[in-house]
Amino acid sequence: MMPRMKASRRRCRPIGGGITAAKGFCAGGVAAGIKKSGLPDVAVVYSRNACTAAGTFTTNRVRAACVDYNSRLLPSRSVRAICCNSGNANACTGARGLRDAHATAACAGRLLNTPPSSVLVASTGVIGEFLPMRKLCDGVGRCVGSLSTSGGPSFARAIMTTDTRPKEYAIRARLSGGGVVIGGCAKGAGMICPTMATMLCFVTTDASVGSATLARLLKRVVGWTFNNLTIDGDMSTNDMVLLLANGASGVTVGSRRDVERFEEALFDVCNRLCAKIAEDGEGATKRIEVNVTGGRTYDDCKAAAKAIATSNLVKTALFGNDPNWGRILCAIGYSGAQFSERKMTVSLCGVPVCKRLRPAPFNKSTMRTALARKIVVIEVDLGLGGRTCAVAHTCDFTYDYVKINAEYHT
Amino acid sequence: MMPRMKASRRRCRPIGGGITAAKGFCAGGVAAGIKKSGLPDVAVVYSRNACTAAGTFTTNRVRAACVDYNSRLLPSRSVRAICCNSGNANACTGARGLRDAHATAACAGRLLNTPPSSVLVASTGVIGEFLPMRKLCDGVGRCVGSLSTSGGPSFARAIMTTDTRPKEYAIRARLSGGGVVIGGCAKGAGMICPTMATMLCFVTTDASVGSATLARLLKRVVGWTFNNLTIDGDMSTNDMVLLLANGASGVTVGSRRDVERFEEALFDVCNRLCAKIAEDGEGATKRIEVNVTGGRTYDDCKAAAKAIATSNLVKTALFGNDPNWGRILCAIGYSGAQFSERKMTVSLCGVPVCKRLRPAPFNKSTMRTALARKIVVIEVDLGLGGRTCAVAHTCDFTYDYVKINAEYHT
Repeated sequence: MMPRMKASRRRCRPIGGGITAAKGFCAGGVAAGIKKSGLPDVAVVYSRNACTAAGTFTTNRVRAACVDYNSRLLPSRSVRAICCNSGNANACTGARGLRDAHATAACAGRLLNTPPSSVLVASTGVIGEFLPMRKLCDGVGRCVGSLSTSGGPSFARAIMTTDTRPKEYAIRARLSGGGVVIGGCAKGAGMICPTMATMLCFVTTDASVGSATLARLLKRVVGWTFNNLTIDGDMSTNDMVLLLANGASGVTVGSRRDVERFEEALFDVCNRLCAKIAEDGEGATKRIEVNVTGGRTYDDCKAAAKAIATSNLVKTALFGNDPNWGRILCAIGYSGAQFSERKMTVSLCGVPVCKRLRPAPFNKSTMRTALARKIVVIEVDLGLGGRTCAVAHTCDFTYDYVKINAEYHT
Repeated sequence: MMPRMKASRRRCRPIGGGITAAKGFCAGGVAAGIKKSGLPDVAVVYSRNACTAAGTFTTNRVRAACVDYNSRLLPSRSVRAICCNSGNANACTGARGLRDAHATAACAGRLLNTPPSSVLVASTGVIGEFLPMRKLCDGVGRCVGSLSTSGGPSFARAIMTTDTRPKEYAIRARLSGGGVVIGGCAKGAGMICPTMATMLCFVTTDASVGSATLARLLKRVVGWTFNNLTIDGDMSTNDMVLLLANGASGVTVGSRRDVERFEEALFDVCNRLCAKIAEDGEGATKRIEVNVTGGRTYDDCKAAAKAIATSNLVKTALFGNDPNWGRILCAIGYSGAQFSERKMTVSLCGVPVCKRLRPAPFNKSTMRTALARKIVVIEVDLGLGGRTCAVAHTCDFTYDYVKINAEYHT
């Protein structure tokens, strides 16, 4: 499967919940005092069976300890839990940071009666400070005591930093052997940018999937979703997407057709979580979805979509409800994507605003009303006939983004 | 020559003036009604002798007509004038736009009694509208009538768009055959970004330089200066740097040593004009200069410097006078530059804030006072011992940038 403009008939439907929607997963979140605000900051998700697991990580050379720790363990066939803290990124903390990551896994493993190597860890928050290990281990203890199959929302809240709301999504997909659930949650509102697995996202499924297949599918899907997400063009030191499959549904992802269906379902979950992150971007007043079709290749569509989604000028214009298609064209121009000067079209909120690099007439006042809504869709047809579609997610760029990031003091 | 941290003894000194500082150039600027504001919008610079000329242009695939027009003529040995308008970019205007560029050159050529092919043209302003040719030609006529050797400041003002002040710089350099002058002016405050010749910059010299040498030197120097300048990461459709050498000083740039001195002088002029553009970046309260040394190669230094200068998070932090070195490190991490984890240091305003990817102790209140000044210098030593230095120019990222670009309606 490659992303298409019009998805073929949906084989999966949204259900409530997030990381505990799939069978056999329980989770919880508690406040351990790592955040000065006193808000929840320690989260654990646990599977009753051993999981196959895969992860994708930031490509930043300045990597947090948890990224180093997890990337050595994955892909794996024996993961049982993820232990995550917010309020402290455990990044730029050197050898002590790595020891702290190991100690966190050991602490959770002891409490869950599972080897440390079956526990993944994640951290997010301030860079350059050491983890308060006593507070963290106390928190992990209480969190393990609170684990429940209805604990997904607590988990999703405890991983938040500048997020204003938790981000969860789950679907049921029908495979040849029966139904499976894929659910997940994500956090992230700033320092979000292309070319890596963005911020923290945890996805669980009760399907049974081999670890190699899981790693391959996750990599492809992250390339179509999280790697096309940007809030501010800044790639974090801690970004990761972790995917755990515990097989508790009894349904195996075996045939080629099942793999495709599972991939499609995973794409759906990741794509929706990206949209939720974009919607909650720092200072955002609206979500922006950029759909680019008609490129020579998927990569051309992706390059154009990401350039538009990253452009500060496009994003400030949309904050001002301004149909400034010149800035969209300008971003396509420097993206490196091939396009047909004669056939390229740009539409805003479903209305063509530019054809053949020239203005297309449209009603300005109707357009302004459309641009003032909560979701703005930019559609570009590069005019070269390709059938894939790249979707990039972002949000507008506002006074509040500047305020949040000028006032977030170290 | 490659840029170094400490320039060897200066062989050139700043003098007043800009584009008419070199012998044999006269210029002017007038209001022709292209801008709704009624401010000056047509500018002409003219040389009494034929000039060798070189240019570097935007690499945006969506290119303005003037970029196409000039890039076909350059390098050249017979340029006499540049005719520039502001208020209208003549971009996304198709075949008619290119005809208008030719007509502008023809109009100026007729009035200056020189072939159209000896006139370069430049436009800057709104994208997607046709040039008002009658107003423009009337303006060119009045401008040619006002040409004077003291007309540099009028020229510099007439090319402004969202700039708040003109940007001029000139120096006298000593070569083996005598003194020569290099002077120039630039405009640009938004839609300014790496990987091309940024915005409009016009440089003149009375040295005698072959057109091939001129083109080679300009390309190298632009790579060290304008291509390291960013306001908002958005590459314009119209960017260009034009360099005219009329030989009126009687001094020829001949020997290898002279070429090096001339290059050093040209670097100085371009570097200062970059600093002036950064200082006047849209909404800026301060200029930010990023010096990166100690890389394996110049390109590594440049990649790190540009990543820091482009980071919205670094730039909002500096707006808030926050010594947030974690964001600087994060940008170096995703820049792709090689660095030594053991030896890298980051300094802010001359004070080390991070060594070996770990916090270095510093006085926070003194630092906040230093960061509140008009110029903030970020110094990074990548710790790999190389001797070149990349300088990137930018400014802080403020509420007013958002305001200007959300309210600049099409």
